[in-house]
Amino acid sequence: MITSTANKQLKYVSALMRRPKTRREEGLFVAEGVRMCAEIPDDRLAALYLSQSFSATPEGRRFAGRAERVEYVSDEVFRSLSDTQTPQGVLALVRQRSCVLADVSGPAADGGAPHLLILERLQDPGNLGTMIRAGEGAGLTGVVMDADTVDVYSPKVIRSTMGSVLRVPFVCVDDLGAALHTLKESGIRLFAAHLDGEKTYDREDYLGGVGFLIGNEANGLSDEIAAMADEKIRIPMAGQVESLNAAVAASVLMFETARQRRNDRERRRT
Amino acid sequence: MITSTANKQLKYVSALMRRPKTRREEGLFVAEGVRMCAEIPDDRLAALYLSQSFSATPEGRRFAGRAERVEYVSDEVFRSLSDTQTPQGVLALVRQRSCVLADVSGPAADGGAPHLLILERLQDPGNLGTMIRAGEGAGLTGVVMDADTVDVYSPKVIRSTMGSVLRVPFVCVDDLGAALHTLKESGIRLFAAHLDGEKTYDREDYLGGVGFLIGNEANGLSDEIAAMADEKIRIPMAGQVESLNAAVAASVLMFETARQRRNDRERRRT
Repeated sequence: MITSTANKQLKYVSALMRRPKTRREEGLFVAEGVRMCAEIPDDRLAALYLSQSFSATPEGRRFAGRAERVEYVSDEVFRSLSDTQTPQGVLALVRQRSCVLADVSGPAADGGAPHLLILERLQDPGNLGTMIRAGEGAGLTGVVMDADTVDVYSPKVIRSTMGSVLRVPFVCVDDLGAALHTLKESGIRLFAAHLDGEKTYDREDYLGGVGFLIGNEANGLSDEIAAMADEKIRIPMAGQVESLNAAVAASVLMFETARQRRNDRERRRT
Repeated sequence: MITSTANKQLKYVSALMRRPKTRREEGLFVAEGVRMCAEIPDDRLAALYLSQSFSATPEGRRFAGRAERVEYVSDEVFRSLSDTQTPQGVLALVRQRSCVLADVSGPAADGGAPHLLILERLQDPGNLGTMIRAGEGAGLTGVVMDADTVDVYSPKVIRSTMGSVLRVPFVCVDDLGAALHTLKESGIRLFAAHLDGEKTYDREDYLGGVGFLIGNEANGLSDEIAAMADEKIRIPMAGQVESLNAAVAASVLMFETARQRRNDRERRRT
């Protein structure tokens, strides 16, 4: 039982929570909470940390049986380790799963056309997590992020994806321009969500392979990246609203794509 | 110039920021930042607090000319007063504008059919603010909230509305069931966003008066309130996602309404 915050292993866990560089070097990230940890596939579960009181519950014992490496931590020390205000007593070290662009530029596992979200300099961890969660629901086949986007493995992103981060393929690219070039060559049409967009978003056809470009919360897309889009699209706004929250804008576009594809499938069936 | 955090006025401002009860009793709330404060109508601006260095800028002098009561605060004290990490040097006391149900149950100012968001026990201030901002963009004509929903005048809600809170009419009701009854009698169709919904959201007609019921982030709508809806609707989900973030779900429904109404207007025009 670990009873001190000075414990070497806990310092390691804490570094994984705080430092993107440590996560990158170790190829691990930290997930917390019962629901999130229950969804981690066995082959990606590197270690489990259980609080003393949680480990004594039936659910805690089930968790303990799943991982090769299980560490027990006193409740007080677990609380100081946790990133949440009301820790549930379970925290996992999870193996990162890396994708490359070729994994998301072709048809999806079910044969469907690519449906990508492409992020430039997105800064808010909650926004990124919300997009990945909503994206899974909308049938997103992948997320492409540039190097200036907030680290997808930060605890706040992981938490707000509610487990979707384990299932939606994502790629971090150093050169977003080059990646867009590759996607276009694969036949994916790129749509930039843009305040100056001339096309109304729901008048475009998203049945083929599509990628939606979403920019930084404060500044939008860079001119250079926006210029690479096949179309600039706009979500028409009532009132005096200039722009939407990035996660809301992405969700409106992704669920419009889901709507069009669902209608198309039903048309073909009848 | 106020140079001490012990100053009586600043203690009052701080109480308005922290305490819903003080806000209610005084009929005021606190708004921060250049953009937000610039949008406050003159007749609602009760007082302005400017930091010393901001007040010396041309923009700061323009602000000072707008309010009857202007107080100057040393930069250090302003920082400790501010709710944000990088305060912009301007903070306003704003008069609350109360609406009653009759204000939102009839046609909107432009004659359009009611388009309402109805919230039960919503807890996250960021979600509420994001919904109000997205709602203004989607042409929402009003928000109805029950007494268990987070206080719309809390600084975090105000900030995340980006000014929309000054423009979208909202009503706080003590008895949500009675309010729904009144709305139904006004001919507004109520749609509950529900995981068990049998109808797909985009197959319903939102051209007439509509209200979307959105429940608590963790528990959804209460059975009692969900039962009052005319229809339970569902946003179909791919993958293993069970539910969407409340602000995302509300936005998908509101922008579907905006889409249908826009298409209808164009059909009539041609």
